[in-house]
Amino acid sequence: MKRAGNNQFLKQFNQTAILDLIRIHGPVSRAELSKITGLSPTATGIIVSGILEQGYIFETGTGKSKGGRRPVMLQLRPDSFYSVGVDIDIDYVNIMVVDITGNVVYEKAEFMAYTCMCQLTVSRIEYYIKVALDFLHIDSSKILGIGISIPGMVDSRTHEIILAPNLKWENIFIKDYIKRFSNIPVYVENEAMASAICENWIGACQGIDNFVCINVKSGIGAGIFTGGRLYRGTGGSAGEVGHISVHENGPKCGCGNYGCLETLSSTVSMVETARKLVRQGVVSRMNSFEDVNEIGLDQIVECARAGDEAARGILSESSRYLAIAISSIVNTLNPSKIVIGKEFVKYADLVMEHIKSIVSAKALRLPAMNVEIIASEIGQKSSTMGAAIVPLKVLFGK
Amino acid sequence: MKRAGNNQFLKQFNQTAILDLIRIHGPVSRAELSKITGLSPTATGIIVSGILEQGYIFETGTGKSKGGRRPVMLQLRPDSFYSVGVDIDIDYVNIMVVDITGNVVYEKAEFMAYTCMCQLTVSRIEYYIKVALDFLHIDSSKILGIGISIPGMVDSRTHEIILAPNLKWENIFIKDYIKRFSNIPVYVENEAMASAICENWIGACQGIDNFVCINVKSGIGAGIFTGGRLYRGTGGSAGEVGHISVHENGPKCGCGNYGCLETLSSTVSMVETARKLVRQGVVSRMNSFEDVNEIGLDQIVECARAGDEAARGILSESSRYLAIAISSIVNTLNPSKIVIGKEFVKYADLVMEHIKSIVSAKALRLPAMNVEIIASEIGQKSSTMGAAIVPLKVLFGK
Repeated sequence: MKRAGNNQFLKQFNQTAILDLIRIHGPVSRAELSKITGLSPTATGIIVSGILEQGYIFETGTGKSKGGRRPVMLQLRPDSFYSVGVDIDIDYVNIMVVDITGNVVYEKAEFMAYTCMCQLTVSRIEYYIKVALDFLHIDSSKILGIGISIPGMVDSRTHEIILAPNLKWENIFIKDYIKRFSNIPVYVENEAMASAICENWIGACQGIDNFVCINVKSGIGAGIFTGGRLYRGTGGSAGEVGHISVHENGPKCGCGNYGCLETLSSTVSMVETARKLVRQGVVSRMNSFEDVNEIGLDQIVECARAGDEAARGILSESSRYLAIAISSIVNTLNPSKIVIGKEFVKYADLVMEHIKSIVSAKALRLPAMNVEIIASEIGQKSSTMGAAIVPLKVLFGK
Repeated sequence: MKRAGNNQFLKQFNQTAILDLIRIHGPVSRAELSKITGLSPTATGIIVSGILEQGYIFETGTGKSKGGRRPVMLQLRPDSFYSVGVDIDIDYVNIMVVDITGNVVYEKAEFMAYTCMCQLTVSRIEYYIKVALDFLHIDSSKILGIGISIPGMVDSRTHEIILAPNLKWENIFIKDYIKRFSNIPVYVENEAMASAICENWIGACQGIDNFVCINVKSGIGAGIFTGGRLYRGTGGSAGEVGHISVHENGPKCGCGNYGCLETLSSTVSMVETARKLVRQGVVSRMNSFEDVNEIGLDQIVECARAGDEAARGILSESSRYLAIAISSIVNTLNPSKIVIGKEFVKYADLVMEHIKSIVSAKALRLPAMNVEIIASEIGQKSSTMGAAIVPLKVLFGK
């Protein structure tokens, strides 16, 4: 099993295309590939041989015969190559290893206090990746690439991190900080866009051209697909839906504006409201916590599930503003699907009907009828997984 | 000069591509075309001969020599073929004829009271087109197609008008109503999307991948380009930015929602506000009109230009809400350009700085810095012109 240099392999479009067809249709025979691509059986055979030699696929048993000899089937070889996904946020780093088929073979969440320090963070990440590869007994030469998801703006061509305000990173080429794995290609991706890539590759949005993935956590951001492709916008900052104005005289946002969606629907805003209510002495189960600072999203959700009105009110109000923003997105983008993910999945079942009914009342009839709004089934790890998929997308020419 | 059947001509991709290159680069030599396309001089020559025979282009003088014989230059033949654009709205129909180069050779606005009656409207349109072609001495065989712009939702593949609420048209194939010109292909397009097509083909957004054209008139709608292509959304209704919520407790909109942008920034809403103020006896030049119903947008703008505070306040407040919606669009789509058109051009100079300063304060710093906000130079006729460009886009394979 041989593999050419990371940026050299599968030079030809045809090879990439056939490898991608094996991914999508496998197990699949050479004859079927020839039929799908329109390439001659001979040309198909030569390309398949090349891919077999490089180790990405293997021959697996025999398929159904349509008269003659039963054809040999081709399939991706899961243990051939792998990809690493890393999700960096203010206080944690998630590491994931997926195989070439997209199966997760390793994942680990690591608390990390000083992600604002880039060199330190990258060193720790390299260490975590080493631990993962040792655990899996995988040589680093089998790693197609490292995808890194960042809560900020990236330049997808140069892989520069332009600005990640929460990490306080600006104009950073993360590749420059990588020492141990300096031979492995590194890709950076915006966190919400990584989630959208994940939903499109293996999640709820496979084969869907126009969709929006909204991540609710300490901030709110979205990854948008238009016409089957990730839409980045002109400067790479498309999808900043957390800063849609939903309340003209609402609270001041970190961005300087007032009444941004984030100030009313992020987990931070919900927790702040809860603590404020408790301080004000509202009648609520949330009063049972000794220290008001113990109250986080999990506590609010727990109280809401136990029927606490104040906690339910917080989730409901936050979701109402989320639904107002979603209505604007539905009217503007007319997507087939909206997937809400990250922390939202913790309380999705409590608020989803509320959100749907508001969107159905507020958005125009036809686009509202056309859109399906769901909670992500992948949830918290969608960005890490999306980051891991980025090198796979490169391999499969997507 | 011969021309094959409407859907048959220029079958081959190469022919279409070369015709488009002559449109973009003309006057251009065969050698330059060969260089741009990578096709051999012989292959290029054969394709060019075919296009010459079909009449779309002509040989025009000689270009600069780079040593040898001075090359013959190729250029689109303006009088070879034409395209008709029609813009239908509640009370008017605009007709335009453009030549193959996009030059306007005829335009006419016709008042029309009963556009809700489809058969009657189409008959009148056919009559107006006949008048235009007679005036121009153009035979209908020279018409590449009729593009029709509609204030509503269309299916661009089937050319069905799905819903045009103001015209009260629903599920209409306009082609079925056409008798005189039944041999000419008919295309339907949403009005705001037609404007965006126009700005992209010959206006301020040539060569720009990501932009939004917002039309302000009795309603407000947008045409969106992402990645260099018109973005229609899943059901063809993308760009309904007139229904972005900008004021949660704002006026009730025709769509059933409250505080939609349209209810605060459309020309109808501005005129209503003006009349209300006059009825309430506000001190204003607008009181000088004998009948309050004489006050339309033109009168408001006229008074504002004369320094009237009440009239200026109306334009300013309407623009403030427009700027709030634009801020959300800038955050969501991170476009390079926003072009505001139609009636807006009448008062653009009075409010543009106001709009820019609000967007710059309300949108995120980086996307706000990246976006250029301008008034359309094409203005009122952008939809008619965009409709006329649709058949040209088909010809040039765009």
